[in-house]
Parts: sequence; C-alpha cells; structure tokens
Amino acid sequence: MTAPTPEALSAVTARDGLEKLVRARYRNGALPAALQGNETLALLAAHRSVRAYKPDPLPEGTLETLVLAAQSAATSSNLQTWSVVAVADPARKAVLAEVAGGQKHILQAPLMLVWLADLSRLKSVATARGQSAEGLDYLEMATVAIVDAALAAQNAVIAAESLGLGTVYIGAMRNDPARVAATLNLPSMAFAVFGLCVGYPVEEVVTGVKPRLAPSVVLHRETYGQSAEPADIARYDEAMQDFQGEQGMRRQPWSDQAVARVADGKALSGRDVLMQALNERGFRLR
Amino acid sequence: MTAPTPEALSAVTARDGLEKLVRARYRNGALPAALQGNETLALLAAHRSVRAYKPDPLPEGTLETLVLAAQSAATSSNLQTWSVVAVADPARKAVLAEVAGGQKHILQAPLMLVWLADLSRLKSVATARGQSAEGLDYLEMATVAIVDAALAAQNAVIAAESLGLGTVYIGAMRNDPARVAATLNLPSMAFAVFGLCVGYPVEEVVTGVKPRLAPSVVLHRETYGQSAEPADIARYDEAMQDFQGEQGMRRQPWSDQAVARVADGKALSGRDVLMQALNERGFRLR
Repeated sequence: MTAPTPEALSAVTARDGLEKLVRARYRNGALPAALQGNETLALLAAHRSVRAYKPDPLPEGTLETLVLAAQSAATSSNLQTWSVVAVADPARKAVLAEVAGGQKHILQAPLMLVWLADLSRLKSVATARGQSAEGLDYLEMATVAIVDAALAAQNAVIAAESLGLGTVYIGAMRNDPARVAATLNLPSMAFAVFGLCVGYPVEEVVTGVKPRLAPSVVLHRETYGQSAEPADIARYDEAMQDFQGEQGMRRQPWSDQAVARVADGKALSGRDVLMQALNERGFRLR
Repeated sequence: MTAPTPEALSAVTARDGLEKLVRARYRNGALPAALQGNETLALLAAHRSVRAYKPDPLPEGTLETLVLAAQSAATSSNLQTWSVVAVADPARKAVLAEVAGGQKHILQAPLMLVWLADLSRLKSVATARGQSAEGLDYLEMATVAIVDAALAAQNAVIAAESLGLGTVYIGAMRNDPARVAATLNLPSMAFAVFGLCVGYPVEEVVTGVKPRLAPSVVLHRETYGQSAEPADIARYDEAMQDFQGEQGMRRQPWSDQAVARVADGKALSGRDVLMQALNERGFRLR
C-alpha cells in the first residue's frame, strides 16, 4: 500500500476510516484495527472547523437536537450553570461578526449559538427565596460555569457533525463582553464564553484535518515529567507547514505563530481587559 | 402505547432510541422521528456519570484512542493549551481520591485522567527562543486553557462511551490544586481543572439518565429575555425528586441543593481559595 499523498491526507473524512484519520491528525502513528467500524470515533477524529457555509436553513428540530445533546453533557454538581442564545437574525449576527473582527462565516452560517457561563439563574433562584448566593462571587464558580458551557457546547458540536453540519468556535466573543451582553440582553452574572457557527459546509471549500502535536507531547503517564522536547516542536512546525501548503495558506511554523499570539497583553485582541469586563458583568472572581 | 414506568425511564440506554432518551432527560418532550438511527446522537443522549467500576483493565490502545479523540477537538487558535496526566498507579490514585474527599470510584476505576489547563508549554517554547510570553499572565489565557481542556476531555468522554466505557468528572481536583500539582509533578503554569475516571461500569448498579432543566430554561432565542420562571424550577424540582426516588436516593428539591451549594465561600469545599492557589501555580490572572 502506498502512503496517501498530502492532499489526500488533509481531505480525509469519517468515511475514510480511523487509520487515515489518525495519519492526518498526527502525520504518523496507528491505532488498533479493533476500532475500525466505530462510527462515533471516526466522527470525532474527522473534526475540522468550518469557515465557509451555504445559506441553506437548518431542518426543523435541529436546534432542539443540539440543545438536547448539550444538556446531556455532564455539569458540575448538576448546577447547570450555562445557557445558550441562538442567533439567526442577520442584523444581530452582523453585530456579533463586527465584535469578532469581521469574521464572514458568522454572517454566512444560518445559526450562531452563543454559549454563556451563566450564574444568573442560581442567583435568581436564591434571591426569590431571600437566600444568599455569595458563593457565586468566587473564581471557582466562574470556572464551573465556563467548564459547564464548554462541555455542553462540545456535545452540540458532535451532534451537529453527526447531522452533516459544520461548526466553528468563535472565541472572539470575548473581544468585547459588554457589547455582546448588550446585543443579547444578557443579565448580570452571565457572559459569552464563545460563539459557535452552525451550518452546512460549502462543499467546494475542502477544509483539511489539522495536524496536532504528537500525543506524547500532551499525554503524560503518572506524572508530568518534562515539557515538550524541542525536537517534538520542530517536527510539529514541519507538519503544520505541510498542512498549510496543502490548504493554500501561508506557511509559518506553529511555534512562531503561537509565541506571537501570547507575546504580551496587546496580542490578545482586546481580551487583556477580560478581568475588568467580567467584574463589570457581575463576576467578582474572588 | 403505554407510557414507560419511571424505572424504565431512568434505565434507558442508547439502544432504546432517542424518543425514550428525550423523555428520560426532560420527563417530557419529543424530537423529530428523522433522528432515529443516528447512533452518535443516541450515545450523547444516553450519557450518565458512572460511580461504580469493575476492576477490569482497559484494552490495549484505549488511552491512545481517548487522546486522539481529545486532540481532535477544537482548540483556541490551535494553541493546544491543555495536557492530560493518565494515572493508573493505585497509590497515586489514592492520594487523588483523598483530595477529592474520599470518592471511592477513583480507587475502583483502572484509569484516572487528570486534565490540565497548561500554559507551561507555550511558556517553555517562548523561553527557549528568549522571547516574552507575558500574554500568558492574563485571565484570558487561563480561560482559553480551561476551555481547551474541557473540549478535549468531553471528546474523550464521548470516545470512551462509544467503547462501552463509563466516566465521571472529578471537579474536586480543585479542592487542593497544590497537592494535586505535587502528586503529579506539574510544572508552573499548569493546573488540574478536573479529573475523569474511566472504566467498565458495574452492570448491577443501574445509573439513570438524570433529568435536566427544561430546554426552554437554558435556550434563549435572539436575546436572553428573562431568567427561569419559578414554575419551570418547581417542575424540575419535582422531576429530580422522581428521579431520586427511582435511584433510591434521598429526595431533595434541586433548587434546595443548588442554593445550598453556592450559599457562601465555605460551601465551596475549599475552592474559595482557588484564585490564590492559581496565583501560586504561576497563573497571574491579570
């Protein structure tokens, strides 16, 4: 068997089976043959973010299905400290796209889900009984709510992909939490952790399976041991440049991009004031 | 068709199909028939946390499969700011169980995955080049890392369930971040967001599909509008007590439990000092 060409690598889908997907993800490596035939694993492994959407509307019941999947995820102590705002109105999506620095896919996708870390519900339940909810004022509860929102959203992503839809997370909702809150009429103690575009991918735009760091870099056994070896990072820099070449993107080593992205507060696209923005949204973060 | 008894409700599995799963999750409601036959959706909807494990070891390659699934999740700007420590050593699991207030399932499960928000890798890549990574000192980058870890972990959960395994998240790793860090030899700028037990469920222990708040409570359309109606909360309090009865647990309204859980800093199981603990782990959280 000849090795797949790089082009074939980035274009693999769940139907190509796990072996090829593993090769695309790691540019290397293999998994036990016993896993072939597991549709859910193949779906997970075939994930890519989609940034080109058809205008086609979503079938009736899609939103409810995504929310069912989201609510089926674990939630810390069953507190359910997340909510989601489903935005389909073009004018409202346009405001969110502007917050996100003009990301066109927010305008294209028929649905933008904005996932909230939402402590307002517990606050209102406590207030209705005349009870204190001072525990909500700690960093711990903001962490719980952020994790809850992320677990819920990821289940919605998997559900969407199982329905043939594509998605992309929009972290840039954090560029301007106050404007997002005003646009979505959010109560105090709720903030938009990220958005998620949902829609049918434009077939002509082939988005590849993006390589990741070697599993040995992120997986530690028993104890952490040492951080990434320079050789691992160098190999990944090469793999990412191969991928960028396949995708017609500018080639740049991952480590160059990553280090630039965290060089200083100014590199954070306005998110260097997130602490203050959350304080203003009612999160004390003690 | 007669309505399923409450017992049948909580014991539904992915094989029972989505209609029954929706009923178990919401005690109410229906989804389009078109979704029947989607194995991935049924798997998502059938999720329950498992707290009783058989000692059976995991098949060869399981850990690698879970990590592949985790690495296939989206990660903010491809920064991959998470890592995972796989703990199988009984003595080490015993320490983690102690941190978690003696949760026995940590001892039972053959594998405990500890998911890290990990900014140490980017720090070391920058340092190796003599470059600054001051952007890591902001709340924004800690948020990115927490979200990255959660998305990765949730993919691992879905992968595990697709392999017939059960899981339960262990938020109590945050009870004592310093002790967890010492036990796992974590570098500065890495902290354990949560653990995840992985293993084969004890079949005799039937864990039910836990009801959640009505979808109308967590899903908002276009704008947030108002918070939960007292009637919605009252209905959910009833549903949870029905579930507790089916599971042989003490009946207590959800709203009573939830409000008690966030009453004040003391209710947070030691996590009221999370801000200080993260500062000590090298997260400045500006």
